Amino acid sequence: MRESKIQRLALNQVHIKDSFWNKHIQLVKDTILPYQWDIINDRVPGVETSHSLMNIRIAAKLSEGEFYGQVFQDTDVAKWLEAVAYTIAVSKDEKLENDADMVIDMIERAQEKDGYFNTYYILKKEKRFSNLTEGHELYTAGHLIEAGVAYYEATRKDKLLNVCRKLADLICNTFGEEEGKIHGYPGHQEIELALVKLYDVTKQKKYLDMAKYFIDKRGVGKNYFLEEQKKENYHHIFDEFKNYDPIYSQSHLPVREQKTAEGHAVRATYMYCAMADLAYAYEDEELLQTSITIWNNIVNQRMFITGGIGSSGYLERFTTDYDLPNDSNYAETCASIGLSYFSFRMNQITKEAKYIDILEKELYNTILSGVSLDGKSFFYVNPLEVWPASLIPLTSKAHVKANRQQWFGVACCPPNIARTLASIGQYIYGIDQDTIYINLFIENETIVQIGEKNYKISIITKFPFDSTISISVQKLTEYTCDTDIQPNEIKDIRNVLSKNAEINDTVKLKIRIPEYTKNFVIKKGEENIKYDNHLGYATIELSHEELLCNQEIVIHMDMKARFVHANPLVRKDSGKVCIMKGPLVYALEEIDNGKNLSAIMISTKQELVEKYEEDLLGGVTVIHLSGKKISEMNWTDHKLYDSREVLFDEVKLKAIPYAYWNNRGEGEMLVWIKEIFES
Amino acid sequence: MRESKIQRLALNQVHIKDSFWNKHIQLVKDTILPYQWDIINDRVPGVETSHSLMNIRIAAKLSEGEFYGQVFQDTDVAKWLEAVAYTIAVSKDEKLENDADMVIDMIERAQEKDGYFNTYYILKKEKRFSNLTEGHELYTAGHLIEAGVAYYEATRKDKLLNVCRKLADLICNTFGEEEGKIHGYPGHQEIELALVKLYDVTKQKKYLDMAKYFIDKRGVGKNYFLEEQKKENYHHIFDEFKNYDPIYSQSHLPVREQKTAEGHAVRATYMYCAMADLAYAYEDEELLQTSITIWNNIVNQRMFITGGIGSSGYLERFTTDYDLPNDSNYAETCASIGLSYFSFRMNQITKEAKYIDILEKELYNTILSGVSLDGKSFFYVNPLEVWPASLIPLTSKAHVKANRQQWFGVACCPPNIARTLASIGQYIYGIDQDTIYINLFIENETIVQIGEKNYKISIITKFPFDSTISISVQKLTEYTCDTDIQPNEIKDIRNVLSKNAEINDTVKLKIRIPEYTKNFVIKKGEENIKYDNHLGYATIELSHEELLCNQEIVIHMDMKARFVHANPLVRKDSGKVCIMKGPLVYALEEIDNGKNLSAIMISTKQELVEKYEEDLLGGVTVIHLSGKKISEMNWTDHKLYDSREVLFDEVKLKAIPYAYWNNRGEGEMLVWIKEIFES
Repeated sequence: MRESKIQRLALNQVHIKDSFWNKHIQLVKDTILPYQWDIINDRVPGVETSHSLMNIRIAAKLSEGEFYGQVFQDTDVAKWLEAVAYTIAVSKDEKLENDADMVIDMIERAQEKDGYFNTYYILKKEKRFSNLTEGHELYTAGHLIEAGVAYYEATRKDKLLNVCRKLADLICNTFGEEEGKIHGYPGHQEIELALVKLYDVTKQKKYLDMAKYFIDKRGVGKNYFLEEQKKENYHHIFDEFKNYDPIYSQSHLPVREQKTAEGHAVRATYMYCAMADLAYAYEDEELLQTSITIWNNIVNQRMFITGGIGSSGYLERFTTDYDLPNDSNYAETCASIGLSYFSFRMNQITKEAKYIDILEKELYNTILSGVSLDGKSFFYVNPLEVWPASLIPLTSKAHVKANRQQWFGVACCPPNIARTLASIGQYIYGIDQDTIYINLFIENETIVQIGEKNYKISIITKFPFDSTISISVQKLTEYTCDTDIQPNEIKDIRNVLSKNAEINDTVKLKIRIPEYTKNFVIKKGEENIKYDNHLGYATIELSHEELLCNQEIVIHMDMKARFVHANPLVRKDSGKVCIMKGPLVYALEEIDNGKNLSAIMISTKQELVEKYEEDLLGGVTVIHLSGKKISEMNWTDHKLYDSREVLFDEVKLKAIPYAYWNNRGEGEMLVWIKEIFES
Repeated sequence: MRESKIQRLALNQVHIKDSFWNKHIQLVKDTILPYQWDIINDRVPGVETSHSLMNIRIAAKLSEGEFYGQVFQDTDVAKWLEAVAYTIAVSKDEKLENDADMVIDMIERAQEKDGYFNTYYILKKEKRFSNLTEGHELYTAGHLIEAGVAYYEATRKDKLLNVCRKLADLICNTFGEEEGKIHGYPGHQEIELALVKLYDVTKQKKYLDMAKYFIDKRGVGKNYFLEEQKKENYHHIFDEFKNYDPIYSQSHLPVREQKTAEGHAVRATYMYCAMADLAYAYEDEELLQTSITIWNNIVNQRMFITGGIGSSGYLERFTTDYDLPNDSNYAETCASIGLSYFSFRMNQITKEAKYIDILEKELYNTILSGVSLDGKSFFYVNPLEVWPASLIPLTSKAHVKANRQQWFGVACCPPNIARTLASIGQYIYGIDQDTIYINLFIENETIVQIGEKNYKISIITKFPFDSTISISVQKLTEYTCDTDIQPNEIKDIRNVLSKNAEINDTVKLKIRIPEYTKNFVIKKGEENIKYDNHLGYATIELSHEELLCNQEIVIHMDMKARFVHANPLVRKDSGKVCIMKGPLVYALEEIDNGKNLSAIMISTKQELVEKYEEDLLGGVTVIHLSGKKISEMNWTDHKLYDSREVLFDEVKLKAIPYAYWNNRGEGEMLVWIKEIFES
């Protein structure tokens, strides 16, 4: 039997003070959520109409009108609510909370008596659950449930939670193996992981069982979607579903028989999250093994170095091992968010640090690249190589954009980024009995409760631009509680603090050793601490005295900028090299390096020179290097092909973090640079 | 005013005896046409149903049933007829001619009283010419007219020609500037060039004027297609036309204002052919300049080294300058055929050899690659790099195939290849007053009439695997007419031969100097002939005595296999090199060079070793070279990315002509090979 999993901390316990992340998190509250609020209220001119709140208002009979938007338009509101929940969990915001309460009132009012809620189906008067392939009802319900749980956890207000329970009850009564129920499963997974979250707060096992049914049933026997599409009155909502292949929705095989990541990448990762959840909840070793196998397949064969997944622009899907085209891929921001959620769950269950390596890779690269530095524009698609002139509407690369977009008709990514950034605090630590996991190197002060005892943990660092991390864990007593942090619950715990000082206890710290460092030194004062690398963690024990005297532990790791190669089976990257620093992938941009980045070649036999630029992109370490560029000098006659000598120009190059590309206007961008080999 | 253009020879004058081409031409007669005959008769099990002859039979009221197939299904029959015409023009074939006559009888019977013919619109009872955007009626009419003209020229039978005249008359009465006529133009160009051909045999100027109207009207004022699609009863035939952009059909600008090749590549090249024709016919310098500008844009910025055009798989279209992706392009065989036809016309008008360079490139590469060595399977799409595992249905690369296909639902390419191969004889020579142009180096014996005099030209060569070309021109007299060739018309001319011997005349030969040779030596006996390179031709004069004594002229050119680079602005080819020999592009195949061809790097500082292999692929010269291949040895742990040293294995490589790839089973293929630069 599996041991207990690592527990996450509540967001209100973690007080982030990080120089890298705070500006982004603050953007969520100050810009992204208000902007999204204006969007869902249709107050932003020049962007695609949302109509999502109006749909709810009409369904609540507070306005008249018709439904407008995608079948899943409700999720724009649900994801906004969820992000609001995470944001106000960290720090109160009356305006946000009032807006959210008003929206929740409308949702409650719009909910049908039997618990059904979906404005597309209510307003269009279409038959519920008649098109699981494309109708997105269970997907939409899932996002509402995630919002309901988050809002309850943040505010303890249960109105939306109760709406969600009623909706979930309806789903439980509608789907299942019993006669009279629909023996189907969602066309877009999401409800499964949401039902697990609903179970976590309500402890109603039927929600867990419902999630398990959807996973167990998927891909078993005759494919539900192909059968559904044979029905006489079936009509397609999306043109691209006319040649439906069950692999698209991971329903080509029973879930437990799947060995590779296939189909639409967001559908896939949301399902994998639920698989991990259910594997743990039901002690289902087979499902856990499937989750491990698929995670390994993604990370070792099907993931871009930026953490992007989904190699095909068409249908936004996985293709095959090592097929990783840099300039025509999809690599949807939402898919990277899904993979980060999946990885986090896998870490909680297996207690292996490698899963956090991927979570960290996602956060510092493809998730962050999804949003501009001003918080107002967003990438859906995250290419690793962009040549703006070639991105032409109605061509094979039409899905790739040279600039972040204001808002989308299908607006999944912006609110998904918002909820992820707003909840980043939950990924820094993990608690497992008397062990505190240090997973991410983000500056913060946090109150951790272990048993009945409370500890204040501080991390001080300029990571990822500096690789020194100072950690201190202090046992909170009446003598130490004059800390500068004032988390919501600190008053409630003060009364127990005085007792703490007397109990002789120790705490184990498990500090993640990132895969990218070869030299990870942990010091107490001047003393180098010996440790074993067990599952990617260094374990150190803090004594009672050390906990009382707030002993500082300092980590130094080798995190100099480095050259990274891809497995030579990655056709598109062979003969090329990528620059990284810690988890950060670096990119060349036209603004720093001129046009035609493809003609640049570099040798890895050179030192990469790092320089922190305070005023660039909110403060980043850039990397300087030199290279050669194939000269256009002997092609001034504009011939296209000829037998000519290849001449080179010497060039000075400057690379910036990939996540920040396209924050200084439109231009070319390149991650994988051609390598020149010294013979 | 323009001088007269270069005239082509009738096919029955040219007797091809070429070791390279004869096997392919023979295939048309022995395999492709009979196979296609079986296809259009629906006698080949396991391939997509054609139903094209059955549609005609039903329209002729000889069978009952419904229309089946694409809107342009009739063109399968028309292109078959056209290829039959070229084939029987060269050598009689009773079976083919009888079959063709039977088909023509049916077409005549199916034609409506007013001249209309299109089985889709007749049988579906849809309104004629109501959907120019997608209905393909004018396109389909154009192919029928091309067949009618070709069949008349081959057989002097005028039944199909008369059907075409009636149809063309109807079109002339339906379209035009006059009130009551449709002020439109075809959604898929083709009728324009066909009407010019019809004018050439009938001398009815109205056909030429009709073609001119379609070109003059196109893209002028409000876009016809966008207006048409606004009509209430308009319905889309093809899903991908829902977001119609006029650039797709080259109707985004008035034709004369177009500077770049845009949109669907086949539509484009068919239009360019007509533009060249009309520029000449109307002495329209502006249209000629437009044709030159666009041709230069294609050849200098938008063409693959194989002659392929159409960089985007989606909508099979041009994209932008230097955007030439090797593994996801379309490069449709039909588009290369279109470009070869356009280039041939441009050579006839401008008398510049560079146009023949491109015609030759097409013939020896992308057109020939369109058909397998057994004549039974065909490529639509012609990639320059193939990794079969990555070609997955319902992904962005689904249009690329690892193997030639038997037959297609949209079956344009196979019959287009057949008609092109069957008519290759017309491209070898050109006649311009007393000048004979030698354009292609194909072994043949030909009777050429200049004024009233007849000459026998012989070319003997093993080109392109050998670069020696022997040319002799013999004046035909009563003493010389015991030649071993017996062209159809030789008896008719015998009576004039005896006179010829007495007239003192000379002949000018203009021998094309291909762009790929730097050393082009022309010899008469032991004597090197001095010549100027004027517009790509070497001019030599043959005296009366030389013409009588059948003086042999021998060409030696430097045509050793060579390394070719692309302009560094071609992002996908920079840092890579291609191997060519004469017009032939070479490729690496997995069967000779192992898997993962992308990991191979070669130095251009080596000698390419040529070896003729009699038993390989019908006899080809292969090229041996050596290279390095990035080793998988230090990646046996299946990591995807890491900082590791790049190790190389030494490899021996063998390249074959690109046109013959995929004739030995499925595997990887690569044209552009990574270059290793010696520092």
